[in-house]
Amino acid sequence: MNAEIIAVGSELLLGQIVNSNARFLSLHLAELGINVFYHTVVGDNPIRLTTAIEIAESRSDLIIFTGGLGPTKDDLTKETIAKHIGTELASDQKALLSIEEYFKKTNREMTENNRKQALVLKDSLVLPNDHGMAPGMVVRSSEHIYMLLPGPPKEMEPMYLVYGQKALARLTETNEIIVSRVLRFFGIGEATLETVIEDLIDAQSNPTIAPLAADGEVTLRLTARHSNQDIALKLLDETEAQIQSRVGEYLYGYNNSSLIQELVKGLKDKKLTISAAESLTGGKFQQEFTSIPGTSALLKGGVVCYTNEVKQKLLNVKTETIESYGVVSSECARELAENVALLTNSDIGISFTGVAGPDELEGKPAGTVYIGISIKGKGTFAEKLTLGGTREAIRTRSVKYGCYYLIKQLKESQNL
Amino acid sequence: MNAEIIAVGSELLLGQIVNSNARFLSLHLAELGINVFYHTVVGDNPIRLTTAIEIAESRSDLIIFTGGLGPTKDDLTKETIAKHIGTELASDQKALLSIEEYFKKTNREMTENNRKQALVLKDSLVLPNDHGMAPGMVVRSSEHIYMLLPGPPKEMEPMYLVYGQKALARLTETNEIIVSRVLRFFGIGEATLETVIEDLIDAQSNPTIAPLAADGEVTLRLTARHSNQDIALKLLDETEAQIQSRVGEYLYGYNNSSLIQELVKGLKDKKLTISAAESLTGGKFQQEFTSIPGTSALLKGGVVCYTNEVKQKLLNVKTETIESYGVVSSECARELAENVALLTNSDIGISFTGVAGPDELEGKPAGTVYIGISIKGKGTFAEKLTLGGTREAIRTRSVKYGCYYLIKQLKESQNL
Repeated sequence: MNAEIIAVGSELLLGQIVNSNARFLSLHLAELGINVFYHTVVGDNPIRLTTAIEIAESRSDLIIFTGGLGPTKDDLTKETIAKHIGTELASDQKALLSIEEYFKKTNREMTENNRKQALVLKDSLVLPNDHGMAPGMVVRSSEHIYMLLPGPPKEMEPMYLVYGQKALARLTETNEIIVSRVLRFFGIGEATLETVIEDLIDAQSNPTIAPLAADGEVTLRLTARHSNQDIALKLLDETEAQIQSRVGEYLYGYNNSSLIQELVKGLKDKKLTISAAESLTGGKFQQEFTSIPGTSALLKGGVVCYTNEVKQKLLNVKTETIESYGVVSSECARELAENVALLTNSDIGISFTGVAGPDELEGKPAGTVYIGISIKGKGTFAEKLTLGGTREAIRTRSVKYGCYYLIKQLKESQNL
Repeated sequence: MNAEIIAVGSELLLGQIVNSNARFLSLHLAELGINVFYHTVVGDNPIRLTTAIEIAESRSDLIIFTGGLGPTKDDLTKETIAKHIGTELASDQKALLSIEEYFKKTNREMTENNRKQALVLKDSLVLPNDHGMAPGMVVRSSEHIYMLLPGPPKEMEPMYLVYGQKALARLTETNEIIVSRVLRFFGIGEATLETVIEDLIDAQSNPTIAPLAADGEVTLRLTARHSNQDIALKLLDETEAQIQSRVGEYLYGYNNSSLIQELVKGLKDKKLTISAAESLTGGKFQQEFTSIPGTSALLKGGVVCYTNEVKQKLLNVKTETIESYGVVSSECARELAENVALLTNSDIGISFTGVAGPDELEGKPAGTVYIGISIKGKGTFAEKLTLGGTREAIRTRSVKYGCYYLIKQLKESQNL
């Protein structure tokens, strides 16, 4: 089955927003084994939209539309499709009720225009909108499947995942359930990971294995299909176990998790408090940590010690340490981690000191980074990193490595 | 003139990347008065690409291609276009030299494939690639203009702005020079700004005025066109003066600047040092500040005082302040700002304390924020904010307001 995604909206053609919907749908259609051969963007214009539909019908089996389901007179996707395929629009009772509820909940006045949003293509399968008003719909002609989805990603994405994907599986008569799982790795490069599991990737069919690298992390998306959900999940488990047996030590989390989230979880489980002394990262570790709600019981705070003056005055780094080893050193990292924990009375202290660049520092090149970790009752140590990339990439990766080392410590230490 | 943008690349159809090039080009084509009616994405497949070109020719005058100019066998945009319009590829000497230089500079071995990148459509205007290897090109047939640009945005964007835009202006025989300027505003909402300058927006033609709101900021993009660059710039100046006379107090910078960059510039000019005490922002102010290279002479550092314990122990906030007013208070904000400046011996101290949410704190709702500012020789004050939005939006806006207040202080105080 070949698919085409048609995004309807003049705001896309004016460059006001980027077509992230096409990306999202492409990624998930690939999981269903559906080939996407074209993306098209067309404005809110019935003649041009009709032409785009005709072209799509000539080359694709499944046509997914995003956008143009809103209440204003610019929104004409379903009207144009109805006219084109020779059907009518009818009010959907469930959708109308849900719109009325939405207005009641948000205490706003409902207008006649909003009633228009409950109109759907006659005999279509209606996809409920759990995050907005316009329902989606799927309708089938003798040769094509048309799926209409709303434009805002926060409405479109959950609608597709919860209702759209199932409808497609049913309509394409596969009757298969699709389950996927993303394995998240850190500390291993994409090329190395792919080499280690090359035979699994080459032999993949069900589950499929799709690697993706971004921001110093590598993910593997496993997608299994089966008419029985339990068997589909078992297929995922088996493939994951094979992967784990080879690169399990680098696996840190699943799906939408992140290193900082895993660290927060680990600290919460063990009821440990933490504080940070940040030089080159300038507060990035603490900022990311506190971006997660409810972390005030874990992170006491810390010091951004951007200058040597603050390292010495607030964090008591010894003059002889700086004179003998410099601030970009294992010795300084250890003192910073130990002292920030003492100062704030935390169980763990972590420190980041190094050269973010672009210029070198103390004769050490950009990308030289030391991470200090001090754990109450376990001692203090430091790790050295040699990172490449821009200033921002070096800072970002430093924070990720810091989280990664801590997560490993928490896992390995039974008695923490 | 009607334009269509064709992005070539299977990675787009697989959902691995988003088509940001189409957005960028649409935005800039609109400035030239060129209507973009379609975006198309097609894979690295010569037959499907040829069909896409035929469709584009039937409905568009200008066809801009992005992607498929690389060295591998998948890259076939120029080969397919050459065959389609009946022309040949010839090696471009300048492009070849530049590729050879590129390899010399990066100390890598040049392969035969890379030579392929110097091939261009015969009789085309070559657009140099200052950030990569594949040159762009423009070629004209009796009915169409074809522009070929590389896929990576960091190569495509500067190539279009420096060479592509001029070539288009020349080829469309406007002979006009386009100059644009983005005015950046903070502290005023989009609706208010648009109302205040509504008559200017309604009467716009040259320069055009395009408002855009994002992340709590509003920008106005002014674009003027004239055969004489000086006159075009004068047109921009005149319109900016009109806008400034009405909302000048909210204008903080131009083009790609940001509040934090303007703050860094202001502190550098006046040779002032700063430090920060961050509670709800968790280090975000210092992290953004230090993301700019060369700021270690300005920001001494500071404290992330996420817990009351750290506020008291490291920043000496008085127990009676917390007991009488709470930490979410003007009084606490002032003490934090004053004490962090004293502690680090800085000219300026800034503090952020408040409720990021989602839960309330001390009976105050999420979005209640106090920013304290202490300036040596000028005293200490605090500003109260009542912000809406998510936890992350509240933190981001708090930092922006902090920068905005400081920039205003630096501008208003002659003797700082």
